[in-house]
Amino acid sequence: MILAADIGGTTCKLGILDSNLNIIKKWEIVTNKDDNGTHILKNIYDSFIKHLSTINLNIKDCIGVGLGVPGPVDFNNGIINGAINLNWHGKINIKAQFEALSGLPVYVDNDANVATLGEKFQGAGRNESDVVCVTLGTGVGGGIVSNHELIHGFNGAAGEFGHITVDTKQRFKCNCGKHGCLETVASATGVVNLAYHYYEELQFKTVIEEAIIKKELQAKMIFDAAKAGDEFSVYVIKKVAKHLAYAFSIISVMTNPKHIIIGGGVSKAGQFLVDHIEQYYKDLTFPPAYEGTKIVTAELGNDAGMIGAAGLIKIYVLGEKI
Amino acid sequence: MILAADIGGTTCKLGILDSNLNIIKKWEIVTNKDDNGTHILKNIYDSFIKHLSTINLNIKDCIGVGLGVPGPVDFNNGIINGAINLNWHGKINIKAQFEALSGLPVYVDNDANVATLGEKFQGAGRNESDVVCVTLGTGVGGGIVSNHELIHGFNGAAGEFGHITVDTKQRFKCNCGKHGCLETVASATGVVNLAYHYYEELQFKTVIEEAIIKKELQAKMIFDAAKAGDEFSVYVIKKVAKHLAYAFSIISVMTNPKHIIIGGGVSKAGQFLVDHIEQYYKDLTFPPAYEGTKIVTAELGNDAGMIGAAGLIKIYVLGEKI
Repeated sequence: MILAADIGGTTCKLGILDSNLNIIKKWEIVTNKDDNGTHILKNIYDSFIKHLSTINLNIKDCIGVGLGVPGPVDFNNGIINGAINLNWHGKINIKAQFEALSGLPVYVDNDANVATLGEKFQGAGRNESDVVCVTLGTGVGGGIVSNHELIHGFNGAAGEFGHITVDTKQRFKCNCGKHGCLETVASATGVVNLAYHYYEELQFKTVIEEAIIKKELQAKMIFDAAKAGDEFSVYVIKKVAKHLAYAFSIISVMTNPKHIIIGGGVSKAGQFLVDHIEQYYKDLTFPPAYEGTKIVTAELGNDAGMIGAAGLIKIYVLGEKI
Repeated sequence: MILAADIGGTTCKLGILDSNLNIIKKWEIVTNKDDNGTHILKNIYDSFIKHLSTINLNIKDCIGVGLGVPGPVDFNNGIINGAINLNWHGKINIKAQFEALSGLPVYVDNDANVATLGEKFQGAGRNESDVVCVTLGTGVGGGIVSNHELIHGFNGAAGEFGHITVDTKQRFKCNCGKHGCLETVASATGVVNLAYHYYEELQFKTVIEEAIIKKELQAKMIFDAAKAGDEFSVYVIKKVAKHLAYAFSIISVMTNPKHIIIGGGVSKAGQFLVDHIEQYYKDLTFPPAYEGTKIVTAELGNDAGMIGAAGLIKIYVLGEKI
């Protein structure tokens, strides 16, 4: 058995999986962030023990623990460098701490990477050696799988798609300090940025006018209005889609994945968003790099991270990459 | 021993290397492109046999053959899809043909990939798990090494840096049919494109004026003039460097290499070019993705491809990635 946890700011998604990454049991616990989040790992461990016993197993039946965490990870050493959402500050060796608790091999990766790995093993990227997942949420993140393995890069910054500069007019400042990042025009926040911007510039009539004026606009409203045919909202979504298509054209000539998987909250817009991206993607992309590549939405929803965390054990403990 | 060949349109660079990729013997033969290039592989094989005998070895002392070829390769199957410079047309299974000739395992990759692998094992990228090589020649090519392995992508189009769209004004048409590719503004041809363009637009005084008017300009003239302080040439090189810096900023957030290695003819401009790129690179790049990354020039010159071809055997026959 493999133990896996996707540690989030509100809840931790826990699971017991077999070595083929089938979920034997899954559940959630509340994330207790008190005392600088120092209870989190112990709570997860205790919960594993409790749930293992309900299916007549114990820790010795397990071959390893995979953990996904919401922050930058030094993968080789299992050290996380702060995670604001968990109230974790500075460098913490999660791998060493959880190995001490459990006596098992532990692998730790960031949440975007484990979600990508989940989709690669059991979701939209299954059976493929080369896939990319682009997560469109509050920000834009993602992960790259090439040769059946996650790419971390030498400093752990691989797959930071949110910080590809795509807005040549550099209209919006990114959290990273730069202007023009993909995140500023294609995250949930970015979609709203563009709607405010074009409303001011173009003074379109639109059903989302009231939300714009009250500054209460949310990405979902824009997608819903666009799907219903609101001209202004369609205009905004086309702009979002064009920026994403450009980023996807770059992803395609960089690691040439079979699937570009869109995850995160914005991906709930589904095929509507994919269709708009596809209107630009091929025109922007070097032909050998788009031939056969499919843009798809993620399949595993909230389970992706937990399954992918278990996937770390499949790769690094069992040595099985496929 | 490992046998390796970097097959080019004019000469084939051949070598006998040990399993640590030290060159025991190296030499060149002329590429005979007659009869649709059907003699090339046999000539290489015969030359290997002859040179092995001069050092009292024979084919049975060898563990495999690595080949670099100037065209698109389906790496898993060792099939090349045409190579204009070799007079090869359509799909040819080079791996199967050379295995039949030699009785040894054969691995085949394109020239940009084997050159990258050469630099990774014995050149500017040695001892690093994550490096990228960007080849600035007549066109712009390159290769990506992540997790100590080449990334091919599912369709063999990974590392096609030349076709990242960087020129937002899309001023020059690329050989691929699109406009605005990195290749149109940063290859040897691209540097010349920009010089003609800005000369017409700005009417600078410049020492390369005569070559511009006669349409005899070459990239080297522009770099030489820029190094000597010619204002117009410096202006052009700054534009080239800015486009490269943008591409490098993308490479950095994609696979986050330790070294971005510049190869190809244009890299002879050396530290002068690197210095200009560095003036833009950090400003354009997500900070965690440039921290510790170095932009360097290639070290192995013409031997890179042959050493990297041997490196394929180290990875795929010996199973040694480091």
